[in-house]
Amino acid sequence: MSIRPRARDLQIRIGRLDPGPNNAITDVPGVLVGHTTLIEGAGKLVPGKGPIRTGVTAVLPHPGDLFLEKVTGAVYRINGFGEVTNSEQVNEMGFIEGPIMLTSTFNVPRVADAVIDWSLERSQAMGIDTWGVSPVVAETSDMWLNDGRGRHVNREHVFHAIDTAASGPVEEGAVGGGTGMICYDFKGGIGTSSRRLAERLGGYSVGVLVQTNFGWRPQLMIDGVPVGRELEDYYPRPRQETATPKTHQVDGGSVIVVLATDAPCSHRQLNRLCVRAIDGLARTGSHTGNTSGDFVIAFCTTRKKKHYADTLTYTFEQVVEDGDLINHLFWAVVEATEEAVLNSLFKADTMIGRDSRTVPGLPIEATVECMRRYGRPARLP
Amino acid sequence: MSIRPRARDLQIRIGRLDPGPNNAITDVPGVLVGHTTLIEGAGKLVPGKGPIRTGVTAVLPHPGDLFLEKVTGAVYRINGFGEVTNSEQVNEMGFIEGPIMLTSTFNVPRVADAVIDWSLERSQAMGIDTWGVSPVVAETSDMWLNDGRGRHVNREHVFHAIDTAASGPVEEGAVGGGTGMICYDFKGGIGTSSRRLAERLGGYSVGVLVQTNFGWRPQLMIDGVPVGRELEDYYPRPRQETATPKTHQVDGGSVIVVLATDAPCSHRQLNRLCVRAIDGLARTGSHTGNTSGDFVIAFCTTRKKKHYADTLTYTFEQVVEDGDLINHLFWAVVEATEEAVLNSLFKADTMIGRDSRTVPGLPIEATVECMRRYGRPARLP
Amino acid sequence: MSIRPRARDLQIRIGRLDPGPNNAITDVPGVLVGHTTLIEGAGKLVPGKGPIRTGVTAVLPHPGDLFLEKVTGAVYRINGFGEVTNSEQVNEMGFIEGPIMLTSTFNVPRVADAVIDWSLERSQAMGIDTWGVSPVVAETSDMWLNDGRGRHVNREHVFHAIDTAASGPVEEGAVGGGTGMICYDFKGGIGTSSRRLAERLGGYSVGVLVQTNFGWRPQLMIDGVPVGRELEDYYPRPRQETATPKTHQVDGGSVIVVLATDAPCSHRQLNRLCVRAIDGLARTGSHTGNTSGDFVIAFCTTRKKKHYADTLTYTFEQVVEDGDLINHLFWAVVEATEEAVLNSLFKADTMIGRDSRTVPGLPIEATVECMRRYGRPARLP
Amino acid sequence: MSIRPRARDLQIRIGRLDPGPNNAITDVPGVLVGHTTLIEGAGKLVPGKGPIRTGVTAVLPHPGDLFLEKVTGAVYRINGFGEVTNSEQVNEMGFIEGPIMLTSTFNVPRVADAVIDWSLERSQAMGIDTWGVSPVVAETSDMWLNDGRGRHVNREHVFHAIDTAASGPVEEGAVGGGTGMICYDFKGGIGTSSRRLAERLGGYSVGVLVQTNFGWRPQLMIDGVPVGRELEDYYPRPRQETATPKTHQVDGGSVIVVLATDAPCSHRQLNRLCVRAIDGLARTGSHTGNTSGDFVIAFCTTRKKKHYADTLTYTFEQVVEDGDLINHLFWAVVEATEEAVLNSLFKADTMIGRDSRTVPGLPIEATVECMRRYGRPARLP
Repeated sequence: MSIRPRARDLQIRIGRLDPGPNNAITDVPGVLVGHTTLIEGAGKLVPGKGPIRTGVTAVLPHPGDLFLEKVTGAVYRINGFGEVTNSEQVNEMGFIEGPIMLTSTFNVPRVADAVIDWSLERSQAMGIDTWGVSPVVAETSDMWLNDGRGRHVNREHVFHAIDTAASGPVEEGAVGGGTGMICYDFKGGIGTSSRRLAERLGGYSVGVLVQTNFGWRPQLMIDGVPVGRELEDYYPRPRQETATPKTHQVDGGSVIVVLATDAPCSHRQLNRLCVRAIDGLARTGSHTGNTSGDFVIAFCTTRKKKHYADTLTYTFEQVVEDGDLINHLFWAVVEATEEAVLNSLFKADTMIGRDSRTVPGLPIEATVECMRRYGRPARLP
Repeated sequence: MSIRPRARDLQIRIGRLDPGPNNAITDVPGVLVGHTTLIEGAGKLVPGKGPIRTGVTAVLPHPGDLFLEKVTGAVYRINGFGEVTNSEQVNEMGFIEGPIMLTSTFNVPRVADAVIDWSLERSQAMGIDTWGVSPVVAETSDMWLNDGRGRHVNREHVFHAIDTAASGPVEEGAVGGGTGMICYDFKGGIGTSSRRLAERLGGYSVGVLVQTNFGWRPQLMIDGVPVGRELEDYYPRPRQETATPKTHQVDGGSVIVVLATDAPCSHRQLNRLCVRAIDGLARTGSHTGNTSGDFVIAFCTTRKKKHYADTLTYTFEQVVEDGDLINHLFWAVVEATEEAVLNSLFKADTMIGRDSRTVPGLPIEATVECMRRYGRPARLP
Repeated sequence: MSIRPRARDLQIRIGRLDPGPNNAITDVPGVLVGHTTLIEGAGKLVPGKGPIRTGVTAVLPHPGDLFLEKVTGAVYRINGFGEVTNSEQVNEMGFIEGPIMLTSTFNVPRVADAVIDWSLERSQAMGIDTWGVSPVVAETSDMWLNDGRGRHVNREHVFHAIDTAASGPVEEGAVGGGTGMICYDFKGGIGTSSRRLAERLGGYSVGVLVQTNFGWRPQLMIDGVPVGRELEDYYPRPRQETATPKTHQVDGGSVIVVLATDAPCSHRQLNRLCVRAIDGLARTGSHTGNTSGDFVIAFCTTRKKKHYADTLTYTFEQVVEDGDLINHLFWAVVEATEEAVLNSLFKADTMIGRDSRTVPGLPIEATVECMRRYGRPARLP
Repeated sequence: MSIRPRARDLQIRIGRLDPGPNNAITDVPGVLVGHTTLIEGAGKLVPGKGPIRTGVTAVLPHPGDLFLEKVTGAVYRINGFGEVTNSEQVNEMGFIEGPIMLTSTFNVPRVADAVIDWSLERSQAMGIDTWGVSPVVAETSDMWLNDGRGRHVNREHVFHAIDTAASGPVEEGAVGGGTGMICYDFKGGIGTSSRRLAERLGGYSVGVLVQTNFGWRPQLMIDGVPVGRELEDYYPRPRQETATPKTHQVDGGSVIVVLATDAPCSHRQLNRLCVRAIDGLARTGSHTGNTSGDFVIAFCTTRKKKHYADTLTYTFEQVVEDGDLINHLFWAVVEATEEAVLNSLFKADTMIGRDSRTVPGLPIEATVECMRRYGRPARLP
């Protein structure tokens, strides 16, 4: 587990709202997170063999049977150069009916297939008397550090991520689906954060978990400080060294934002929350590059829909879109998204992968020093 | 009021579900409809003067204060060569907060302005302490029969349509916003129909009101019978005679579908209902021509949202999207849309307008005869 | 190969435009179609073993390297209770970069993975120096006749469908992805049709291929004739016999429409074409049931985009959206979609599958007789 | 004309790309901007009379006949609590066919009607032989400073804005449609900025003009510096003083972004550019408040479509969405949007309006001092 500090450990406080107890997506009651991290081999790339720097992360909206008790959900496309399986169904029906999986690009079908395996094992009826799970699998590409063609995430890895998913603190950095990712030309990966609204606003929680694989280093901002510009020449920028006239995608990469809340939001309202994740990403410097697959996958834990309904209608609570509550939910999304991205950077250590390529972790001391130079109260723990 | 028969008076029964008592959108409890019909002058077009063949129709989702008690609503674009004002707001917030107005193209701004007038008169707070009404005004073009440039629908006409809106039977044919419209190269206009579900399915109603101004005659189908092909040479087809290489839009025109239900549908669910209106239009022969502005404006009368809310959340009923109820709602939309289009044709009489142009009403006897030739039990009343 | 007649063999002529030489999607120059059909075992369902009634169909937009020369494409959701992988990317970037695969629901991930295999074999750069293929895999569910949980479509089946894809006549009925499908409670599957515009309109072709698995029998219309109502009691309706209070989805099922044209259409224009496929489906009786995954996957063969571009801009031809051409393209979509659905019905023979369940093929003589009773000139060949 | 400095006059340089000669939307060749500013009366609000603090701004995509030579265009909804008339048509057909008008909320219909007047005067055919202009009118609400109910923008004001539209420097601040607007609780209004790409990237220009009426003061960031937090107690925040439990919309307001480029972008590509405007807004602190009507209206000046086309197809240039050009266009949008918002703040002076309410202009010295305290090189001119 990464011993590096999180943003808040360095006195970098994003926004005005308070985080929940773990400052993690798991602060939304019921949400569970599990990772399988695969790091094997070194040196020259042998396609299909290694080196392996990849993995898979599972986010479970609640601990029960996700298929029989679906949650209200939405998938929002910021920039669609990427895949979230079954996004169309989520948006048509307004629910998510299984674990949300994050992995690397080429692994998507195998992870989806394993989620079907996992679900079939738990249901005798599925595919026989009733329809089957529609897996939600999202991805970013780790091909710069990992043997992408090898598709090393298998059935057992997926089962492990789901079955070990837990509440409480969430491992961050180069873990799970984020293992081989690069963010602002530093090592990226998984990050998380949360916000908890005041009791007078219902005491609702908003939690965000991101898999970060985007950005061009000079764009990186931390709480408004141009850290990326200041560290532009720190250790060669990874993707730059292999850029050719044909692959000069300096502003590529992708990010997946998983957004959870226990505030009772309809599908339409979840979509509105998703839009605000863009604000959070932008505050870290994102210009939403051309080849980025940027998606928000949102769900509400308190609006459940039974698979087998025996009534004509049901009753749902819904947030009033007036006044303070809805805006505070929006603010919570912006803040938690911004901080989750920063946590993915702070927690991810330097990694050496495919063809001995090195991606530096965000240098903690230099970053703190830079923050202070720009008038911020950051300091080492 | 048109003495021509409706489809059902001719034993033309569309679909399998039963209509409500008036077979009209007003069968959805609370819904009111009012028209202002403007027919003045004859002969040669004098732009800005006449002849006038236009009007405005108001559909009120309920008899109360529509701004203070908004209804869940949606605007769905089938083909966007046309305008529905404030569609973006309806879809962002999921509500409609005023009367729904149907008129002809050039009149849209003046009708919207008059709706603001009407609303300001009813509210001291609007525009001073709170936001103002966002009028929903839709249109189709009557420029082939009417002096469109004249924009003859004024403030009083709009007020009259709203203030005389009533429940009960709805006037159809060449009335209100539909006064100067053309459908399948016959006279079109306003038509309406409804369906009522069985008690075991909640006894919900679905009502449709259309303003028809679309279609090429050979495409017209009535309950599957190719009436348009059979009547292809009946009286010259109107728009054809003025077609030039530059204006040869044989399959243009537009249609507005207003869709009401008391089944508790969310914004997402209303959108799903709207999609099925396309099926209903297609069953009358629509190929959704290039220059058509085809929109569905849907609302649910039983999910109201207070303008001034003093709670954090509220509770909404919602249809279970499983089993019979949702499919029957879809079927009701298909059937009522199809029948409403037919009613707009059957009820609209031949009209002579601008430049003495004539648009024939659908010939009733010939149509009945054609239906019988194709094995249908139609007969004159 | 099915010896049953196509609609046109029975003098059932849909619409006004002429089909191309094969009346198939392959009439669009360059388009190839291949099938792998899997029919094995009989009797009682043993999940994971059989009986097997499934398969996979490949539609290739052109015979060249689909990744290096992408085609302009679009994915349009009619009703999203289903999956088309990578739909978001197609709509973001406006291109399709591989074969389009149709299969059954549970097989989607395995087929997508096999398409990656197939693509990696053809590219040394993919996943190493450049991004990888984003497979477009669509599905409908064959679980009523097939051992869905078994996911019997494997890598070799996918390769076979792609590698045997050919121009010329296309096999229809219970083949490929359509093997185990049910349409209007008759046996469905794969159907295709095309239209060719007049030379004065550029001589462009529109081709459609459908995988049909939707509809409730009483809804079936053939050229406006209520064949489904007339045949309501012909042989027990398949899904009805297994309906329970919990699975009474009488109007479920799904349809995938693949739409090809050589008319130079942009992504936006392809989307407009897709909307008209709804009209074609509706004309066969579709009410777009609740649990249907209805998608249109469209592409234009004459607007290719190089994977490696070495210029700043490129030049594209585009259809003028005025006058006759665009409307005739729309009409071609409506007609070809309607006829493709009918062909899927006429060509598919009675099938006995899982648990000895039987789905009757559309009875040809009874259908012809019914058409004649309703005044249509159909006759047996 | 405001003598206050622009951001760049204070050495506040946003981003890495160079602005065009005027650092204005008019740097995109052919684009013209005109304003009508209405400031009359003072003191207590008399609804319908005054005080008047409103106006209208016209952006013309080119100096020719906008209806006969339409430009490729798109309207993108960020948050739809507001109106852009005819957005559906722009997105269906992909073009804009008239001047783009910015005004205050209640004036929208009257401005749209006046645009029709203006267009009819220029066309004998419109509404007689061909369809009429579909005005694009956007709005934000000035009701806090202005007599909104009075709808004081009339026909002559609209004509004046259009007819005086010019290239070259653009007046900013409390002018035109921006006259009565409030941004981050300082005086807002109209702002503009541009970026010009290097010759190796085609030398294309991107220009942005904003009408700013959004934001909560503590959120304001200038180049990453938390200016709003630092100036939180500077002069009472305007909307706060009138907030009540029923109107406590601290994060409301709206922003319209008009985005012009001569880079040849299709409708789909313009939509992609629009998404990046969100990044620019977010970098100034926007959290996209609940009641904001945030839209981007984008057009491309070099892809014109003739109203009367006499060919079947036409040829369009289009940007290659690979490598540097598309990303630089995205970056230009982010930078120009951010800087345009700042310019609207820097150029707008303190205004006293309705009920003697005062909205302070952003204090220049205090802002510069704050920037320096946070390590930025800002200084007074």
